[in-house]
Amino acid sequence: MARPVKKKVLVIHGPNLNMLGLREPETYGSQTLADIDTAVKNRGAEHGVVVESFQSNSESAIVEKIQTLVDGDVHGVIINPAAFTHTSIAIRDALLLLSIPIVEVHLSNIYRREPFRHTSMVADVAVGQIAGFGKAGYLLAVQAMAGLI
Amino acid sequence: MARPVKKKVLVIHGPNLNMLGLREPETYGSQTLADIDTAVKNRGAEHGVVVESFQSNSESAIVEKIQTLVDGDVHGVIINPAAFTHTSIAIRDALLLLSIPIVEVHLSNIYRREPFRHTSMVADVAVGQIAGFGKAGYLLAVQAMAGLI
Amino acid sequence: MARPVKKKVLVIHGPNLNMLGLREPETYGSQTLADIDTAVKNRGAEHGVVVESFQSNSESAIVEKIQTLVDGDVHGVIINPAAFTHTSIAIRDALLLLSIPIVEVHLSNIYRREPFRHTSMVADVAVGQIAGFGKAGYLLAVQAMAGLI
Amino acid sequence: MARPVKKKVLVIHGPNLNMLGLREPETYGSQTLADIDTAVKNRGAEHGVVVESFQSNSESAIVEKIQTLVDGDVHGVIINPAAFTHTSIAIRDALLLLSIPIVEVHLSNIYRREPFRHTSMVADVAVGQIAGFGKAGYLLAVQAMAGLI
Amino acid sequence: MARPVKKKVLVIHGPNLNMLGLREPETYGSQTLADIDTAVKNRGAEHGVVVESFQSNSESAIVEKIQTLVDGDVHGVIINPAAFTHTSIAIRDALLLLSIPIVEVHLSNIYRREPFRHTSMVADVAVGQIAGFGKAGYLLAVQAMAGLI
Amino acid sequence: MARPVKKKVLVIHGPNLNMLGLREPETYGSQTLADIDTAVKNRGAEHGVVVESFQSNSESAIVEKIQTLVDGDVHGVIINPAAFTHTSIAIRDALLLLSIPIVEVHLSNIYRREPFRHTSMVADVAVGQIAGFGKAGYLLAVQAMAGLI
Amino acid sequence: MARPVKKKVLVIHGPNLNMLGLREPETYGSQTLADIDTAVKNRGAEHGVVVESFQSNSESAIVEKIQTLVDGDVHGVIINPAAFTHTSIAIRDALLLLSIPIVEVHLSNIYRREPFRHTSMVADVAVGQIAGFGKAGYLLAVQAMAGLI
Amino acid sequence: MARPVKKKVLVIHGPNLNMLGLREPETYGSQTLADIDTAVKNRGAEHGVVVESFQSNSESAIVEKIQTLVDGDVHGVIINPAAFTHTSIAIRDALLLLSIPIVEVHLSNIYRREPFRHTSMVADVAVGQIAGFGKAGYLLAVQAMAGLI
Amino acid sequence: MARPVKKKVLVIHGPNLNMLGLREPETYGSQTLADIDTAVKNRGAEHGVVVESFQSNSESAIVEKIQTLVDGDVHGVIINPAAFTHTSIAIRDALLLLSIPIVEVHLSNIYRREPFRHTSMVADVAVGQIAGFGKAGYLLAVQAMAGLI
Amino acid sequence: MARPVKKKVLVIHGPNLNMLGLREPETYGSQTLADIDTAVKNRGAEHGVVVESFQSNSESAIVEKIQTLVDGDVHGVIINPAAFTHTSIAIRDALLLLSIPIVEVHLSNIYRREPFRHTSMVADVAVGQIAGFGKAGYLLAVQAMAGLI
Amino acid sequence: MARPVKKKVLVIHGPNLNMLGLREPETYGSQTLADIDTAVKNRGAEHGVVVESFQSNSESAIVEKIQTLVDGDVHGVIINPAAFTHTSIAIRDALLLLSIPIVEVHLSNIYRREPFRHTSMVADVAVGQIAGFGKAGYLLAVQAMAGLI
Amino acid sequence: MARPVKKKVLVIHGPNLNMLGLREPETYGSQTLADIDTAVKNRGAEHGVVVESFQSNSESAIVEKIQTLVDGDVHGVIINPAAFTHTSIAIRDALLLLSIPIVEVHLSNIYRREPFRHTSMVADVAVGQIAGFGKAGYLLAVQAMAGLI
Repeated sequence: MARPVKKKVLVIHGPNLNMLGLREPETYGSQTLADIDTAVKNRGAEHGVVVESFQSNSESAIVEKIQTLVDGDVHGVIINPAAFTHTSIAIRDALLLLSIPIVEVHLSNIYRREPFRHTSMVADVAVGQIAGFGKAGYLLAVQAMAGLI
Repeated sequence: MARPVKKKVLVIHGPNLNMLGLREPETYGSQTLADIDTAVKNRGAEHGVVVESFQSNSESAIVEKIQTLVDGDVHGVIINPAAFTHTSIAIRDALLLLSIPIVEVHLSNIYRREPFRHTSMVADVAVGQIAGFGKAGYLLAVQAMAGLI
Repeated sequence: MARPVKKKVLVIHGPNLNMLGLREPETYGSQTLADIDTAVKNRGAEHGVVVESFQSNSESAIVEKIQTLVDGDVHGVIINPAAFTHTSIAIRDALLLLSIPIVEVHLSNIYRREPFRHTSMVADVAVGQIAGFGKAGYLLAVQAMAGLI
Repeated sequence: MARPVKKKVLVIHGPNLNMLGLREPETYGSQTLADIDTAVKNRGAEHGVVVESFQSNSESAIVEKIQTLVDGDVHGVIINPAAFTHTSIAIRDALLLLSIPIVEVHLSNIYRREPFRHTSMVADVAVGQIAGFGKAGYLLAVQAMAGLI
Repeated sequence: MARPVKKKVLVIHGPNLNMLGLREPETYGSQTLADIDTAVKNRGAEHGVVVESFQSNSESAIVEKIQTLVDGDVHGVIINPAAFTHTSIAIRDALLLLSIPIVEVHLSNIYRREPFRHTSMVADVAVGQIAGFGKAGYLLAVQAMAGLI
Repeated sequence: MARPVKKKVLVIHGPNLNMLGLREPETYGSQTLADIDTAVKNRGAEHGVVVESFQSNSESAIVEKIQTLVDGDVHGVIINPAAFTHTSIAIRDALLLLSIPIVEVHLSNIYRREPFRHTSMVADVAVGQIAGFGKAGYLLAVQAMAGLI
Repeated sequence: MARPVKKKVLVIHGPNLNMLGLREPETYGSQTLADIDTAVKNRGAEHGVVVESFQSNSESAIVEKIQTLVDGDVHGVIINPAAFTHTSIAIRDALLLLSIPIVEVHLSNIYRREPFRHTSMVADVAVGQIAGFGKAGYLLAVQAMAGLI
Repeated sequence: MARPVKKKVLVIHGPNLNMLGLREPETYGSQTLADIDTAVKNRGAEHGVVVESFQSNSESAIVEKIQTLVDGDVHGVIINPAAFTHTSIAIRDALLLLSIPIVEVHLSNIYRREPFRHTSMVADVAVGQIAGFGKAGYLLAVQAMAGLI
Repeated sequence: MARPVKKKVLVIHGPNLNMLGLREPETYGSQTLADIDTAVKNRGAEHGVVVESFQSNSESAIVEKIQTLVDGDVHGVIINPAAFTHTSIAIRDALLLLSIPIVEVHLSNIYRREPFRHTSMVADVAVGQIAGFGKAGYLLAVQAMAGLI
Repeated sequence: MARPVKKKVLVIHGPNLNMLGLREPETYGSQTLADIDTAVKNRGAEHGVVVESFQSNSESAIVEKIQTLVDGDVHGVIINPAAFTHTSIAIRDALLLLSIPIVEVHLSNIYRREPFRHTSMVADVAVGQIAGFGKAGYLLAVQAMAGLI
Repeated sequence: MARPVKKKVLVIHGPNLNMLGLREPETYGSQTLADIDTAVKNRGAEHGVVVESFQSNSESAIVEKIQTLVDGDVHGVIINPAAFTHTSIAIRDALLLLSIPIVEVHLSNIYRREPFRHTSMVADVAVGQIAGFGKAGYLLAVQAMAGLI
Repeated sequence: MARPVKKKVLVIHGPNLNMLGLREPETYGSQTLADIDTAVKNRGAEHGVVVESFQSNSESAIVEKIQTLVDGDVHGVIINPAAFTHTSIAIRDALLLLSIPIVEVHLSNIYRREPFRHTSMVADVAVGQIAGFGKAGYLLAVQAMAGLI
């Protein structure tokens, strides 16, 4: 697929991801969200994609961020809804407003954790899912997105 | 029941309803929320009821709006909790604070959609439910409310 | 939508609704089914719709009444299947024969009652559902129907 | 409790009970329904109760028979809903119209049969249940009723 | 197995099957029930079997038709209980009265339809089941029956 | 069935039944267990049956009482296992040791109470069940037993 | 439907069917699989259809046999997946590769057996299902297939 | 355990608790949240603990308040998540960031209320739970906390 | 609430609690039940309450101890039913005989243990529940009780 | 593993096992529990193990017997909890007090019996399980134990 | 039972058991399958039984091995179906072809592992089950079998 | 992590993936498995990884291929178990033998397909999962693996 120069991608991080590096480092590593955002931006640049990041602990802030994409110039959404993955119909509904591709990312392997983390309200709305690779998962998602837009 | 002049009704719209007209028009029609609010206000006027509208994508904003009704001068609440219908115990708890009638409205027929949309945390707290009639459902709700207050 | 003069609507009442006024008045009010049918007819007239009513305690009688609509001159069906709501696949199948709009009505708020009353075999076959408003629910249904045909 | 002379009790037999004696005699014995009705009438007479019997294979006929009791002179209902026990909300709703005592009877021990026979739509509407004693169950029910009316 | 001349078979059609040809032709084809009955009769004749047909929308009428077979001269029953397949314990109980073979037929492949159509109250009472072949299913059933009686 | 003179029946009362009359009189009446035992003995005498009673709050005491019947001279057991009804496999196993008839009794209508009271470990081991008639239920059980032994 | 001369049909028998006649003859009869294959071939010939048979106890062998049909000259598949019916997604996926009609056959009435035999991974992929008629079921399936191809 | 002077404890109150005293006083008493906070502060002082309080109707505000504790000088958290108890994985995840003890409090006995209030997303993350004692529960929690920090 | 001098409280310990200090000390600490009983007595004295303790491994002994309270001079019951928490309907029924307040205590946080320990037959019969605080939980319970009687 | 001379093993038999030989001999054989205990003792002697036996119908007696092992000189426990297998958390908790190996035995194949017998509260606390071999199962258990201690 | 000289027993090992000693030694020990087979053979010899072993990772190979026993000279089957235990209906069906005794063995205690390992398709087809004793379990199984054949 | 030159990775393709390009191209694209394997090899080369591929329709062949890795020189496994994803405990057990990283890939978004495709026996055994990106998913998996080994 012909890939135009400088397409834009938005990365959305859900609740508590702002605490990365502080939170259970043995599980999530010592990198901060800023580290991840920089790495993602760089990987995007390698694939001719401009990446912006957004984090919020607020379901409504995420919903409204997604709503801004309806008439926006963003070509794809990478989302790690974190705790909202399993319960937020509002985020699902907001994503349903979009006609651009969506990629779901999880830092940890959600299938190794509590049963309530094994289901996702977003999975069947996204193109695909990448889970369990830590920071690298975001980088793979950027690449996957570059191939989709 | 004797109906006093100019009773007040609050219409509450849940998350993503601010995107009506933009969102899946084949399902929800091309009318915007402003169109609906105008129509509802007019229908209310025909029945001697003053209708105010409130939309929010935030669960807490809706909870707090409902809390203002506890000692307020509003006589009834019409609520389309949208995505929050199926999960929000906080909105349910706020509605339980009220002693005025509550009417639940849904634009679409929630029984034709995903199974997680078939249950409502609000249904047994409301007087009744009107679902599947699009904008007209709000107008019917105003009439129903006019007969309740 | 342009509304032709004198469209016909059939209201179908399910089992035990012939006992209205006698049956648990604290739940259903003291009005009889005849009272309701008269009120519905009048409300229909206000909207240019001729309303006929039919009540039966027999599932097969209701099925066969619906079958008569296949090639008939009726433009819409309002149905309160009462006890049959939750179990009758035969009524569902009969309604599936029709290409005219169907509106489901319930006098009481079925979500406040026994769990076996929380599901409906008709809900996803109907355009929409109105529940919990007593007699007024039928009147709202007539209006809703007037807007659909 | 003082028992007035000649109170009336209606015994209702559900579908296929008209075939008793023909149907699986090793399970239900060789007595016909007429045999049972005679025995029940006699046992009623011993307790100063006039017993009438009614059998139907039709849910609506049973519903309508029950409806006649609303303003009637019958003091109690003994019902063996047979196959309708497990599914008929319409019969349940009709019984809910009554303010006289209801006793549920089953010829066989329904807890030894298929799982779908282990639940009853009537059990919590009746005063009590007698199951597993064959014809004798009806006689016990008449006595129980004599003590209730 | 030696097959006597002119054994009799009864074909029972459940609710809404009288509407065949009118009802969802894309699913059930344009043939009427009369067309099917004629074809079934002819196929029976080829196998030395006299076929009679019976259709009813009434559960009790079907129950009572089956009861007539208890002491009758019919050698086998082919039944398409349609909507009653999934809920009627009364029809199941009536079939349990018989000692002649029973064959269950469904026009459509019930396993491709709504989940509530995936279970049958009749399946384990019948010798076998034929589903999904439209009219041809009845013809196969007649042949199957000819081999059983 | 020819009934020999003076057959013996044991009535077993489960835990907390020794508190009858003290315990929730609005549910169970003001009669004590001694009152019931006297009435049961008298009713037994009317039917030529000698009735003995046994109450225990201990599952093992009830199990061991039942074990004594294996080679004993008792012809039937009437048991109200009370709280043990729903959980005691040990009592079930003890009853399975017997070849004399067993009748299950419950004072209250267990189908109107908490869901965990709707199942019985004894029901399919007993001949039949009598529930909801208070003290009268025991008297009916004695009569039922008199007809079984 | 115009039927061309000599269309080909493949009959696939699943695991343990090679033991027919040895295995539980009281359930499956004394005929061997070879007997069935001969009978099926003959019945096919009567309907202008050439029938080949294939049996394997190996899921992968069946999957690969089905894969050969993708570009082959076979016009229809009759399959009795036996034990694989209830669990094999691989066979389901292989069948999904085909655009020719599929008919599912079972020798016994699977609805009379253990609950894990009541579901089929193939049922909604096939045109229809024939179950419970023993060898005759295969013959009926050949006829059904002849009418489909 | 040696208890240092003036340890700090944060009390977090979830949604709608700001309405205490107004909301269902028969269930929750007439005391306001300010009354409770004062009492809790006093009880803390008795145990050498400084208590601060925080209430929010916003899940994200609670999440972010908890996040501030990660590097803060607070020694323990007492939380009554109210409606969020049963659904908020985001609050659970925020609490998982902490290494200080957590005590869960509920004003009412949640096991006497709707089934959806019987589970807690916080219970296995907290040291323990105190439920059903109204305001006194907070005071007990402060004492419990004083013994933990 | 005015608190009379020297009210009596009974503490009931369920099965295996007599082994405290021996049993899994890493979970329950090294204190014995006697240590706890002494501490509880002392804490009671501080609140003007006389505390007695009772331990049994026998369900019936606990049931009968509770029965003695029906006409006794005890003003409240603190109960840690241990293993019986999750299954004993007999203890629940005995507690239902009482009109004095009941407080449920658990040493460990039952929500961190096996799923079968997450439900309690006592929880909705008690005023409230305190779980997870080890010995301190009993002391808190005494205080809670002092405020209730 | 070096096996010391004369290690001690306790065999615990649950409720109703004292009735062996009397109870359903076609299922359990005609041997009495004394026969089994003698055989087990002899088999133990062959492996240098002293075997003692204990039977009780009382859950608390079994719990307390197990408690005596905490500081005792017994090296292993073989337990057939019989009816208590499926429900007794108290026995499970008592077994958790021990640090010696536990072997679970069942006379019959519990997987061929009622579904409530398919689960065991003891299985994951024991080293292993031997079921279905009648008396021989105890002998195998003694040998297994001899290899474990 | 008189035991003839030199009866034959087949031991069947399911998938991945060929890796024993390599696979998770902390769970399964360091012995190889060859070690086990030698030990089993020796133990068999002590009981006058000739033991052959068979391992396969292929379900169909196991099915076909079992089929060879139908007319063979083997007197009993010991089977550890490993991963196939929980899903293979084909192996169950093959075992159902046999009239010789079957004993099920598991190296580990399957009730301590993932829930999907708690059920067995073979358990109710076997005489009995021995689980959790490692290699020793096979030796016990040989002895058990020696007593059965 | 320092990455050595020329690490080896094995890609395992499950059943029916050999048919890619032929099978439902609208879902899976027109590329063949050979196309994918070439692309994967090339992408591996870019990351200094040698990639080998293996496809089989046979569960046992896949199990045995995985077993060869136990002592082999392969540093990571990428597996698309296709239909075996949802049911194969044998493949799960084989993967558990390995101490090298495992990455799970799915061509399609399994969360948009039938419910039985929403669970994976492999997910919690793998490091992570990539689903829904078609061929690109394999390429991302190779990169992910390159970062893990």
